[in-house]
Amino acid sequence: MSLLVVGTVAYDAIETPFDKVDKIAGGSGNYICHSASLFVDDVDLVAVVGDDFDQNELEFLSSKGVSLEGLQIKKGEKSFFWSGRYRMDMNSRDTLATDLNVLADFDPILPDSYKNPDMVILGNIDPNLQIKVIQQLESRPKLIAMDTMNFWMDNTPNALDEVLEMVDVLIINDEEARQLSGMSSLVKAAAFIKEHGPKYLVIKKGEHGALLFYEDKVFFAPALPLDEVFDPTGAGDTFAGGFMGHLARSKDLSFENMKRAVIYGTAAASFCVEAFGPSRLKTLTIEELNERVQILVNLVDFDIILK
Amino acid sequence: MSLLVVGTVAYDAIETPFDKVDKIAGGSGNYICHSASLFVDDVDLVAVVGDDFDQNELEFLSSKGVSLEGLQIKKGEKSFFWSGRYRMDMNSRDTLATDLNVLADFDPILPDSYKNPDMVILGNIDPNLQIKVIQQLESRPKLIAMDTMNFWMDNTPNALDEVLEMVDVLIINDEEARQLSGMSSLVKAAAFIKEHGPKYLVIKKGEHGALLFYEDKVFFAPALPLDEVFDPTGAGDTFAGGFMGHLARSKDLSFENMKRAVIYGTAAASFCVEAFGPSRLKTLTIEELNERVQILVNLVDFDIILK
Repeated sequence: MSLLVVGTVAYDAIETPFDKVDKIAGGSGNYICHSASLFVDDVDLVAVVGDDFDQNELEFLSSKGVSLEGLQIKKGEKSFFWSGRYRMDMNSRDTLATDLNVLADFDPILPDSYKNPDMVILGNIDPNLQIKVIQQLESRPKLIAMDTMNFWMDNTPNALDEVLEMVDVLIINDEEARQLSGMSSLVKAAAFIKEHGPKYLVIKKGEHGALLFYEDKVFFAPALPLDEVFDPTGAGDTFAGGFMGHLARSKDLSFENMKRAVIYGTAAASFCVEAFGPSRLKTLTIEELNERVQILVNLVDFDIILK
Repeated sequence: MSLLVVGTVAYDAIETPFDKVDKIAGGSGNYICHSASLFVDDVDLVAVVGDDFDQNELEFLSSKGVSLEGLQIKKGEKSFFWSGRYRMDMNSRDTLATDLNVLADFDPILPDSYKNPDMVILGNIDPNLQIKVIQQLESRPKLIAMDTMNFWMDNTPNALDEVLEMVDVLIINDEEARQLSGMSSLVKAAAFIKEHGPKYLVIKKGEHGALLFYEDKVFFAPALPLDEVFDPTGAGDTFAGGFMGHLARSKDLSFENMKRAVIYGTAAASFCVEAFGPSRLKTLTIEELNERVQILVNLVDFDIILK
């Protein structure tokens, strides 16, 4: 199935307690494409960069089957830039700089060839732009998923409410689920959010795994217990890319298959954190990914005969 | 199989953001007995109380098959008292008072009938006392498990190191594992701790589940996603009681069965947090427990055919 990806393609400067990098390719759309293209080669990207963005990065995405027809390259302008520093626990980070640059007046325009995708993933951008993307579609995709963040909950709540009604899957982290619902219990937060739009809700809990909610069902996927996390940047987007990539590859949107998608997303994200930016994803093979899926299978494998 | 339980039997005063109770029965040995006695009726308790301790509480334990022959009742003295207040997130708490009372000079003495147990669980008390209990055993039990806490790591590190070499299973929480090992990665912490004594290590992560480490294997058990946590006091001890109770009932100390024990411990703990103190455990039936085990089975159930 074809997958339309909308998100950012950016430069990041990242500092962890162990190392730092001044400039590395990043952005939600970028990570999602790296991850999803492991599974399918029918991925269409809508994003914007300046003409400072490394052509090699774009060629790499093309080589993985990602269509860049919807990527706008703004002459004489600079790409979106984000800089952040992770704290000692690697779970929290401080944003040091956010230079919107080309993102400030991003107008996502779908080429005609993008207008009938089977599936859509809307990365974390202004919900007004997420709506604009959906409105350009000529047919209702089989599945629309989206990400968002606290910034949009604070600043564009109405547009966010509107786009939530238009999508099937919301993929956010635990803090975001609590803020969006105003509820501290994730079970209650999930019930609230599902009443306000998305039928499926994925709540990512970082090193503590991920929950998938649908109707009255809950599925829990553990995170891989890792020796070390080198750089968490992009792990959530990599998860989303793996989640959608598996669904697009398997052409099965049942709850049972969504569970598998959560496992594949988890496995993909576990590689992302091993190196700065998307570096590790570039060399990742499907065999390596499968090995890690098998570790996740074993991690929660038990049998009980109740007595 | 018979199970020897050593720990505290105490009075607690508990305050949560939602409610408070001035005096309720508590203590590690108490919670462990409530939980383990759901599974087996051959449970022997070694502990100390003052003569202020409610006779009804003791009779309840007796009625569940817990032997109190090793419970010392100190005339004219007061029981151990702990008071704590939970913060808004229910994950952290402040200790408001710790009145040792009878615990100050507790000398755990095993009646002759307690000296050949099949299994032993040493609740969180002074490691010097944990050693003293082990030294009174006439035969090596099939399994010795223990709990401990940061206080003993800070104040009696040598005795703690010594008892760790004498046990098979250590059951602690994630913070304690990090402090004991000096390592922030739980995978590295587990490797370090297993090198210093216990073959099996259970790391409890509260609402984020529990990890079981053995040799080069890891098992992860999710926590039950709960609507609300009313009072977390005693959840860790209830987990330990369910863990040991299942092992004693099933007479199987394989890794596969330890996994099931973690699941049963998790299910028991999920009831403990529903009410103040051990109240909910007193009415808990094995049928209710099994229902919740089934929810845990379903929570992580998925199948993947790798391709």
